[in-house]
Amino acid sequence: MTPSFVYRRRVHFAETDQAGIVHFSGYFRYMEEAEHALWRDRGLQIAPPGGQIGYPRVSATCDFKAPLRFDEEFEVHVRVEAVGRRSIRYGFTLQRGDAILAVGAMTSVCVTYTPGQPPKSTELPPEVVSRLR
Amino acid sequence: MTPSFVYRRRVHFAETDQAGIVHFSGYFRYMEEAEHALWRDRGLQIAPPGGQIGYPRVSATCDFKAPLRFDEEFEVHVRVEAVGRRSIRYGFTLQRGDAILAVGAMTSVCVTYTPGQPPKSTELPPEVVSRLR
Amino acid sequence: MTPSFVYRRRVHFAETDQAGIVHFSGYFRYMEEAEHALWRDRGLQIAPPGGQIGYPRVSATCDFKAPLRFDEEFEVHVRVEAVGRRSIRYGFTLQRGDAILAVGAMTSVCVTYTPGQPPKSTELPPEVVSRLR
Amino acid sequence: MTPSFVYRRRVHFAETDQAGIVHFSGYFRYMEEAEHALWRDRGLQIAPPGGQIGYPRVSATCDFKAPLRFDEEFEVHVRVEAVGRRSIRYGFTLQRGDAILAVGAMTSVCVTYTPGQPPKSTELPPEVVSRLR
Repeated sequence: MTPSFVYRRRVHFAETDQAGIVHFSGYFRYMEEAEHALWRDRGLQIAPPGGQIGYPRVSATCDFKAPLRFDEEFEVHVRVEAVGRRSIRYGFTLQRGDAILAVGAMTSVCVTYTPGQPPKSTELPPEVVSRLR
Repeated sequence: MTPSFVYRRRVHFAETDQAGIVHFSGYFRYMEEAEHALWRDRGLQIAPPGGQIGYPRVSATCDFKAPLRFDEEFEVHVRVEAVGRRSIRYGFTLQRGDAILAVGAMTSVCVTYTPGQPPKSTELPPEVVSRLR
Repeated sequence: MTPSFVYRRRVHFAETDQAGIVHFSGYFRYMEEAEHALWRDRGLQIAPPGGQIGYPRVSATCDFKAPLRFDEEFEVHVRVEAVGRRSIRYGFTLQRGDAILAVGAMTSVCVTYTPGQPPKSTELPPEVVSRLR
Repeated sequence: MTPSFVYRRRVHFAETDQAGIVHFSGYFRYMEEAEHALWRDRGLQIAPPGGQIGYPRVSATCDFKAPLRFDEEFEVHVRVEAVGRRSIRYGFTLQRGDAILAVGAMTSVCVTYTPGQPPKSTELPPEVVSRLR
């Protein structure tokens, strides 16, 4: 059982769409914010200034259960579900009180960025592995 | 074999992030734009002015294969994979030339919006069913 | 001298662009978030559920002094500079510590929204006037 | 009289907010898209891959005259109003048919980006000056 980290957030007006609810693409941004808050909590920086390493997604998925509206407060529960040699898999649950709003998952890989070249897969730094596990 | 509709697009600067590539949440917006272009192509309006019916997502998923950069032109191939009584499932392939950038899927349900109440599932209008199938 | 309300925020990754800094359009969103935080602080709701009244901008302006980067924490100082019969003018200063990042202003008008019609200018509710002054 | 370049666009669903209209921050993105389309039209690249030069805004302003809604088509007329040694000033008019939706302006400066340092003001490349004037 991996413990989860809880990220708290309020819906901004610009995140709503004309249906009066948060646009579905916003849920993926919320999941990313929670991931980054988890890294900070573990004393890690996911994108340090001047860094050559990055963690792009190779997959992202979300099941939407209930709408979120302007000004509502909610929580993103993020769990590190697997840390491989080159990838990290996260699970997410968005909640408002006891109500489940969405359940999602994302897998990121570690890459090096070189200008003018495609991102190149590389192994996760040992410190990242030890602190996320 | 469902035929696919092709939506063409160019990457805007504001869609990139500090990794120099389109933020992953942008791929979901591109898929939605392609869905809406498909509806227009079939003579349908997905959100007519003053309408009480909407098509929120119940799931969205994407596998990311290659990055997209500022000013690049690409295509979203959208296929209607299933039209049920209350839901529509789409498949998407993002391509730049022959290169596959991403493969995704989304399922939307038909709902009625009433102010102050949760969205309520309803059957797809017959015209939507016949034109999307 | 109007006192200012201070809204605190951290930069999200998706708000950066490929220049490695927050996209300039994001500053306008930060200003709006600060405006809405001010309304909450005064016990007001700028967009209550089911409401017919809104406060669209008629003008927005920003002078950009210094860049903002991922994960940086900053403040938006918002001042109510004028409350007219039908409009509100705000002034904003974005700061990180003592460094001024941007100085902006926005003017909003009070309108009623009727489906299928253009927004119609109306007088500010008395409670809004008294609590913002 | 500077001639204007016309950029055509359609409103995407995700650009609307719960008031049923394009969020005001979106108008600034539309202006930027028009600026970049103008550069392409003149055979220029505003952000070539691997480039060290950028053109951040030092000011942006917009007066909003009429709302834009989902799926509407509109035009952004962009004019180069001044090309200085280190800066460029643009004027913008957003129109739908004959209706003026917004009038805006932006000033950008030429900078060099060095990792870990603040952007540094520099002179516009001669080719940019000659092609934009």
